[in-house]
Amino acid sequence: MFHRSYSSALLEEAVDQLASLPGVGRRTALRLALHLLGEPRENVEQFAGALVRLRSDIRHCARCGMISDDSTCPVCDDPRRNRTVVCVVESLRDVLSIENTGQYNGLYHILGGIISPIDGVGPGDLRIRELSDRLAGGEIAEVVLALSTSMEGETTAYYLYKQITQYPVKVTTIARGVGFGDDLEYTDELTLGRSIANRQPFNP
Amino acid sequence: MFHRSYSSALLEEAVDQLASLPGVGRRTALRLALHLLGEPRENVEQFAGALVRLRSDIRHCARCGMISDDSTCPVCDDPRRNRTVVCVVESLRDVLSIENTGQYNGLYHILGGIISPIDGVGPGDLRIRELSDRLAGGEIAEVVLALSTSMEGETTAYYLYKQITQYPVKVTTIARGVGFGDDLEYTDELTLGRSIANRQPFNP
Repeated sequence: MFHRSYSSALLEEAVDQLASLPGVGRRTALRLALHLLGEPRENVEQFAGALVRLRSDIRHCARCGMISDDSTCPVCDDPRRNRTVVCVVESLRDVLSIENTGQYNGLYHILGGIISPIDGVGPGDLRIRELSDRLAGGEIAEVVLALSTSMEGETTAYYLYKQITQYPVKVTTIARGVGFGDDLEYTDELTLGRSIANRQPFNP
Repeated sequence: MFHRSYSSALLEEAVDQLASLPGVGRRTALRLALHLLGEPRENVEQFAGALVRLRSDIRHCARCGMISDDSTCPVCDDPRRNRTVVCVVESLRDVLSIENTGQYNGLYHILGGIISPIDGVGPGDLRIRELSDRLAGGEIAEVVLALSTSMEGETTAYYLYKQITQYPVKVTTIARGVGFGDDLEYTDELTLGRSIANRQPFNP
């Protein structure tokens, strides 16, 4: 990156660490490191402290896997949520995306990943046992599978389906189709094909 | 960003801090925060520690402003460098860029900014006094101005020129012209015009 003889071990270590973030290359990492170098010392300490506290102090709900600042779960403990519906997602990010829509009022179950033999992730590495325990409780009437359409996502959905059907619950999946604002011409054939096969009554 | 009732103060603080980095929006900041949340705790502590150490432990050369891990200056103390030429730049980043070319063997002088009345940066806020002190030493024969071509850069160059000519030194500036690989058609008129006016002997 820069002339070896004038490199600083402190700067290089900071650049290495920043470049380990997803989507951050070494050039961007250097820019970020030089920015931090120009900031007041207290600001850099606050910056670093916030990240350490996030990792060390945050709690996870033992039931659904949601994050929380204390021992309660902001979703499971909310009396306004519908406790008979559980939406199964891969990660916390998916929960935040679905919450953003304001269209879902049930509970969640965060798997913590998807089944991926290539990455060495099997069913035992995911929170599937915890899901079975929740279903065994008898309160849940519907499980919504909201997994990705990748091969891993489909595999996971199929595996979960086999597990879930042991319990008397309805299993649904989020609707697939042509997105709002998408052009038919640029929609892939699989999506368009399924969206025609699963056509809905027109409600003007 | 996400439903207020399910926000985590720890996550929001981390996102706020990450979004304060240049070029990082709130969406990217959330992605980075969730990435760190999924990393082992020791990794996040190492990450944060590297940034704090960078800011607190790094030293600056009292003469040229270059960074260093100890009390020596990697450039000023290098006996292979030509001590009679000093290149004046705005920031450390410019030093790293010039070092990258491998075409410069003199010393540097980092101003720490450029004169910008709009941002409230005057000559007194920059390391101009330190430059005068170096020139008064008598060892320097040439000062190369390597500042940006913005109005602030030109103002700073003119101000420095007036200061420098008090001393018996040659003042030069880096060559401006059409970049290698650039298309004449897409070069701005000012650059192309100056590059014709300052044409050089052809050395095939």
